[in-house]
Amino acid sequence: MSEKKVFTVEVPLRWGDMDAYGHVNNVTMVQILEEARIALFGPPPSSGEPSESLPVSPLPFFSYLDDGVQALVADHTIKYRKPLVYRGLPARVELILEKIGAASLTVGYRVYEPVTGDHCVTASTTLAFFNTATGAIVRISAEHRARLQELSRCE
Amino acid sequence: MSEKKVFTVEVPLRWGDMDAYGHVNNVTMVQILEEARIALFGPPPSSGEPSESLPVSPLPFFSYLDDGVQALVADHTIKYRKPLVYRGLPARVELILEKIGAASLTVGYRVYEPVTGDHCVTASTTLAFFNTATGAIVRISAEHRARLQELSRCE
Amino acid sequence: MSEKKVFTVEVPLRWGDMDAYGHVNNVTMVQILEEARIALFGPPPSSGEPSESLPVSPLPFFSYLDDGVQALVADHTIKYRKPLVYRGLPARVELILEKIGAASLTVGYRVYEPVTGDHCVTASTTLAFFNTATGAIVRISAEHRARLQELSRCE
Amino acid sequence: MSEKKVFTVEVPLRWGDMDAYGHVNNVTMVQILEEARIALFGPPPSSGEPSESLPVSPLPFFSYLDDGVQALVADHTIKYRKPLVYRGLPARVELILEKIGAASLTVGYRVYEPVTGDHCVTASTTLAFFNTATGAIVRISAEHRARLQELSRCE
Repeated sequence: MSEKKVFTVEVPLRWGDMDAYGHVNNVTMVQILEEARIALFGPPPSSGEPSESLPVSPLPFFSYLDDGVQALVADHTIKYRKPLVYRGLPARVELILEKIGAASLTVGYRVYEPVTGDHCVTASTTLAFFNTATGAIVRISAEHRARLQELSRCE
Repeated sequence: MSEKKVFTVEVPLRWGDMDAYGHVNNVTMVQILEEARIALFGPPPSSGEPSESLPVSPLPFFSYLDDGVQALVADHTIKYRKPLVYRGLPARVELILEKIGAASLTVGYRVYEPVTGDHCVTASTTLAFFNTATGAIVRISAEHRARLQELSRCE
Repeated sequence: MSEKKVFTVEVPLRWGDMDAYGHVNNVTMVQILEEARIALFGPPPSSGEPSESLPVSPLPFFSYLDDGVQALVADHTIKYRKPLVYRGLPARVELILEKIGAASLTVGYRVYEPVTGDHCVTASTTLAFFNTATGAIVRISAEHRARLQELSRCE
Repeated sequence: MSEKKVFTVEVPLRWGDMDAYGHVNNVTMVQILEEARIALFGPPPSSGEPSESLPVSPLPFFSYLDDGVQALVADHTIKYRKPLVYRGLPARVELILEKIGAASLTVGYRVYEPVTGDHCVTASTTLAFFNTATGAIVRISAEHRARLQELSRCE
């Protein structure tokens, strides 16, 4: 029986991530989760420009997708346990691949304060994939599913 | 038996709310929910400056709170049903007060495209209240609870 | 002799525009200038979706541009005279069309606090226009120039 | 005769830095300049929390300032020469300390695309320093001036 693999990434914070309460803002935290996904899967498909200098991501699913396929967020669930304090240091984020659906992926996260180790946020996001030309949902192929399962130990 | 009252507000979008996919970004949508809450409750307490010109909000709970009390987001649940298209027009957001807890409020939202009427997002947020000087959770008084129930028809 | 016409617009602020110093952040101010330009010219071309419900803008230059033409910022000059305080009210922005170039427009702004009337920011932005298919700069036609001059009294 | 020292820093981009045109947005670029200043001077004073793990910055001026002193942006001048493309890689930013005023610092920047080396942005920012308790401008002491001059070779 396999356990899910925990991927740990560091997401650089910005001073502007703080709000008037002096915490990393709850909205910005959702962008930090996005950056954590990018550290896991690579940059979202069909946006920006490719780069050969980019390190290979641990679960490079986005690079499996055809041109014109977009990864869209289908849902977020986010629990804010403690305010995240800005210190000029990256946040530590642990991710697991929670579920591989027919045409979706669900990622789980835990965000930690880098100095105290406080567990600040627990969250999960489901991503779905669309072909922008046809509007059709893009299913995950058997081959890509197998590869994701192997890399993430996710059934 | 009372039904929950639906409050409808308009949240102005910004051009910068769009991402590289040309949709209102999933992160920005969380800020749009924040602005919808502000249209409902008034600006968050213990931040910014007061203004007598500000219209009274429909559920002015934040103005009941003492100086130094902050409203913090405890959780968000957000389902993205359709991309929200930017047209230079405000998004239409319907809100209900879902629950009045001992020391928290839960708000439900539906976000609609202003031209097509497409239902783009369903979400809910729980807010909790903290006294920044003492770090203590701030409970909702019987008087404030009664007032919120009356205005929102929320048990 | 003609004087430049002053256009006054209101730009809604967001609570998230405040930074950890409790002011509208200097970065966000640049987005507020963008929203003031949109109130003047209409939404930037080749982005978002059109809407018949959108009020006609005072200087609807962007609607003169062909499909596939983008308005890009060539430069900004921004002086921050006083911090802008968030009160839940829109900022008041005065704009003039400072210059109509061969292939560019320069806009001047003054941003005012809505309650005190404090003059918080003086700024100017030059916009240039590009055809994304060819990469070529798009020149302002004699007809559009005449129309802009008439509407803005800008030589 | 001394020349100004060029400090080179890398500023991580975020996917959300792109706008609907698919470029790093002109507004976000101003935040990237802020992050470049933080890499140079350290995090802005009187915000966030200190950290012993934070590397010493090359010009640690902000750490010279007393508690309660804020660094505010007095002005920005920004020229956008080429759109900056998002590749999932940090932007390269070169900074110089252009001027040490009586109560202000002026920083110059050049922003480069990390893969092509394209020079995308030239900018400068003047920072001023305020004591939030008294509202008074904070002057740069002779000792701090000498230290800054030595580290930056700026007269």
